[in-house]
Amino acid sequence: MKFATYSSEGATYYGAVTDAGLIALNDRFPEWSTLFDAVQADGLGKLAEAAEGRPVTHSDVTYEMVLPNARRILCVGVNFPDRNAEYKDGSAQPKYMSLFPRFASGFTGHDRPLIRPPENQTLDYEGEVAIVIGKGGRRIKQSDAYDHIAALTLCNEGTIRDWVRHAKFNVTQGKNWDKSGAMGPWLVPFTEAAQLDEARIVTRVNGAVRQDDVLSRMMHPIRREIEYISTFMTLEPGDIIVTGTPTGSGARLDPPQYLKPGDVVEVEVDGIGILRNTVEDEAV
Amino acid sequence: MKFATYSSEGATYYGAVTDAGLIALNDRFPEWSTLFDAVQADGLGKLAEAAEGRPVTHSDVTYEMVLPNARRILCVGVNFPDRNAEYKDGSAQPKYMSLFPRFASGFTGHDRPLIRPPENQTLDYEGEVAIVIGKGGRRIKQSDAYDHIAALTLCNEGTIRDWVRHAKFNVTQGKNWDKSGAMGPWLVPFTEAAQLDEARIVTRVNGAVRQDDVLSRMMHPIRREIEYISTFMTLEPGDIIVTGTPTGSGARLDPPQYLKPGDVVEVEVDGIGILRNTVEDEAV
Repeated sequence: MKFATYSSEGATYYGAVTDAGLIALNDRFPEWSTLFDAVQADGLGKLAEAAEGRPVTHSDVTYEMVLPNARRILCVGVNFPDRNAEYKDGSAQPKYMSLFPRFASGFTGHDRPLIRPPENQTLDYEGEVAIVIGKGGRRIKQSDAYDHIAALTLCNEGTIRDWVRHAKFNVTQGKNWDKSGAMGPWLVPFTEAAQLDEARIVTRVNGAVRQDDVLSRMMHPIRREIEYISTFMTLEPGDIIVTGTPTGSGARLDPPQYLKPGDVVEVEVDGIGILRNTVEDEAV
Repeated sequence: MKFATYSSEGATYYGAVTDAGLIALNDRFPEWSTLFDAVQADGLGKLAEAAEGRPVTHSDVTYEMVLPNARRILCVGVNFPDRNAEYKDGSAQPKYMSLFPRFASGFTGHDRPLIRPPENQTLDYEGEVAIVIGKGGRRIKQSDAYDHIAALTLCNEGTIRDWVRHAKFNVTQGKNWDKSGAMGPWLVPFTEAAQLDEARIVTRVNGAVRQDDVLSRMMHPIRREIEYISTFMTLEPGDIIVTGTPTGSGARLDPPQYLKPGDVVEVEVDGIGILRNTVEDEAV
């Protein structure tokens, strides 16, 4: 069972995703006005029960950012070891992970365009798995970490590269352009460790593979991310951790190859799905 | 007129602050369950009208972080030129400001303790003025920027210094410890430019002045902050910009002087007030 936030004819819904279409569920749960509310209430199981046997309500929908009212989204910086000598600065594996927040406003939904702004054209992709916290906690041990995950989704952590370098110590302004990234298409409940431990992530641009790695090669594994982050802040249901991208972003190619209008980017993980986005210039 | 979020006998309120005490207003505005909702609805004027002539409802209160459900808080890095050769790396004034988000969970309220965690004792203060956006916008011009500010408040942008240096490109994990900073005591409506342009900010630790500067010396003035941030993201009512701290934090003293239990830190700006916090070790 998969759950999405979507819109149809001007109204926004959340519901279950099936091969035949979407089953709206928000009318069944007036206490949860958004999918985020359902996650906060540990309600994905109830959503699944309610969807059982119900007919499809929408077949032609627009996907929204999967949790558009998510409050805290923390991204882990590049988190896979070098595959192709892309990083040549000789730095050893860092002891601690790099972390930066992104606001939900920086993401659009599946099958919608990433927006390239007129100010700068170095729009780049980063394919990642995102985890959604289901059970809060502070100072969570690695051995317990997976118990705190409610669901998985995909992220194209789209970035305006030149703006990442505006400031010395922070990437904020390159990482938070309106709808420069995408998250979705849907939430997949997290039920067994293999969904992460055996996952392979592939990013394609116009069909050509640009990133291809397995999560088991992460320098800072997801269990460690949860442990580390929860050391300094109490994790809460609905928090999202974007777990880090493999090498192979467009900035690292020689010469760099940034996204341009008409490109199609796909981030794929077996068992989660494919997050597909086009690219459009912003209408100003 | 000033507006605060506060609690009393286990319940949370928002209301107007007077010399005699607090006037609860949330019962008058059931459509706004929090002060943040009132800001989002451009409602500070209505709150002021409603408070007019009403009796004090609470005289013994606990101040909460002034907008505990704020969704986007962006902090500007050190934003004042060197006063005392504290910065000796010879770097010229940066062209762009350094920006980093903080979550609301990192802040407590006025008259409450900043929390020093057991993992690290380099808790440091940073006194700052915070602005609260009242009118959203994208690509806001500097000449229009002040029209977008609804209110001012104070921030002690408390930091765990050692953790700021965990990662090369981000300060996230040193800036987001639960209740390591404070914001408040209250919101002061922004009605004239002089409230910012002629303001002096002073930070004291146990009565000794540690930071003392005027906002007019900012390297990146507040008008420019609004222009720059709104270039990449659409500002929305309720967004908070923490505008940057003067030199003089404890880390820059020789030897560094970090905060310890029992210390009292005050951030003061004439016309806004005094944000006062003690320091406590976390009870683990």
